[in-house]
Amino acid sequence: MTKFMKIAYLGIPGSYSYIAGQKYFKNKKMIGYNNIRSVFQKVSENTCRFGIVPLENTTTGSIFETYDLLLTYKLAITGEVVLKIHHHLLAKEILDMKNYKFCYSHPQAIQQCKTISDKFPWLKFEFTQDTASAAKLLAEKNNHNKLAIGSREAALIYKLKIVQKNIEDNKNNMTRFAVIANKIINKGNKISLIFTVKHQPGSLVKALKPYTDFGFNLTKIESRPIISKPWEYMFILEMDLNNKSKLSDKLFSEMKKVTNFLKLLGRYDKGKIYDS
Amino acid sequence: MTKFMKIAYLGIPGSYSYIAGQKYFKNKKMIGYNNIRSVFQKVSENTCRFGIVPLENTTTGSIFETYDLLLTYKLAITGEVVLKIHHHLLAKEILDMKNYKFCYSHPQAIQQCKTISDKFPWLKFEFTQDTASAAKLLAEKNNHNKLAIGSREAALIYKLKIVQKNIEDNKNNMTRFAVIANKIINKGNKISLIFTVKHQPGSLVKALKPYTDFGFNLTKIESRPIISKPWEYMFILEMDLNNKSKLSDKLFSEMKKVTNFLKLLGRYDKGKIYDS
Repeated sequence: MTKFMKIAYLGIPGSYSYIAGQKYFKNKKMIGYNNIRSVFQKVSENTCRFGIVPLENTTTGSIFETYDLLLTYKLAITGEVVLKIHHHLLAKEILDMKNYKFCYSHPQAIQQCKTISDKFPWLKFEFTQDTASAAKLLAEKNNHNKLAIGSREAALIYKLKIVQKNIEDNKNNMTRFAVIANKIINKGNKISLIFTVKHQPGSLVKALKPYTDFGFNLTKIESRPIISKPWEYMFILEMDLNNKSKLSDKLFSEMKKVTNFLKLLGRYDKGKIYDS
Repeated sequence: MTKFMKIAYLGIPGSYSYIAGQKYFKNKKMIGYNNIRSVFQKVSENTCRFGIVPLENTTTGSIFETYDLLLTYKLAITGEVVLKIHHHLLAKEILDMKNYKFCYSHPQAIQQCKTISDKFPWLKFEFTQDTASAAKLLAEKNNHNKLAIGSREAALIYKLKIVQKNIEDNKNNMTRFAVIANKIINKGNKISLIFTVKHQPGSLVKALKPYTDFGFNLTKIESRPIISKPWEYMFILEMDLNNKSKLSDKLFSEMKKVTNFLKLLGRYDKGKIYDS
């Protein structure tokens, strides 16, 4: 039973998926995997009861890899967590900034903290796979002239000190994570689905009419080309059921009539927003 | 005049924006900048006549930074280029694979070529800012036990040999680039626009009705939360005018009536697809 309650997440301790998992599942045992597919696989084969994976970032957009795996695997979204992404400047020892010569992090995190490279132009940046790995690598080094850009959680785990906090340029950068499991649950105030329509003018508007008629609130729509079928698109749709959750099945049957293909990716409660 | 014809692009010679620019502009003089905003800035202040920036990738989705800058700057999309992203294994000298110990590249490119790390598990990966920088760095090193993952163009520029070609796992990975300039042009068979609608059920369907009525083909729709206004969204819409280009102004005036905010990002000809 305990084995069955393990949570699969993306990355190593201190990664943002790890933090999201900690917020959502509190004290459950978590196991990190180095790619999203492995998280799906481990939940699918019941090695882990739940998985937690990134779904969307406010700055960089949808994580298509996750949506593609939701299409392929027989897994469903059963929960949602939103994390405000904060980056901090970490070190083994707090020194005057001029003593630090190197800084580890993921290229994207470095790009998201441009004020640091502008303010301390002598810093030489070295790239790592992700921000948690930067903190881990820093912790393993013996010299004290190195920094890392990473999360507060990574600082705690790898026993690093926070030299400067919230160094991200964009204070509104958030990532939305999906909790995935083997079975669709039939409660929650949000749903996610994917559909395709016939390739003819007006077919998208027709497919969207049911949700409009039911008075649901669209929280996401996104088209994605289907590589194997030029000029055809699939659409990701997410909506808030506005306390009319009972109509969810009805929406689905109405949409069935006006779409070519329709898959419910899951039903879940709108996620809480946490600081990372 | 020659000064005015310079093209601003993202990255350094050999970057995918550089390749897209070469394909589109042939022999024009190109200047690389290390972020998308600088490309916009240089075109805006007439240091360069055109800019070329990534808009969307089939695997990772829209580049929101570019769309945000199109909203902020008074620049317009005037052209489109689509590049098939191919990665190659580059080296100074072609040796038996067991002689290579290190491989430089961007974390994302390494992730897109998993067969390489699976097939040659002894390779130690080192991360760089982008794939063109990996090739440049490799070219500067003196020892021959290093590889880089990068483009064919980067191999040519930095005088590297191709050890193994097309090592990407996904053979359909494409990036769409926008050519940007100071003025909207009034010809071309595609348009891109951004709009917001009133926060009430049915408002999106109402906003989409004009394009349906005109018989245009939707090639992209995407919602994006407006950070400063919880529960409000802006929508990116792109469509093919289907040889009915004359109706483009009319569509715009019809959409004006049913949207809160509407900005035409540009009109341009559907881009050719090139191999990188």
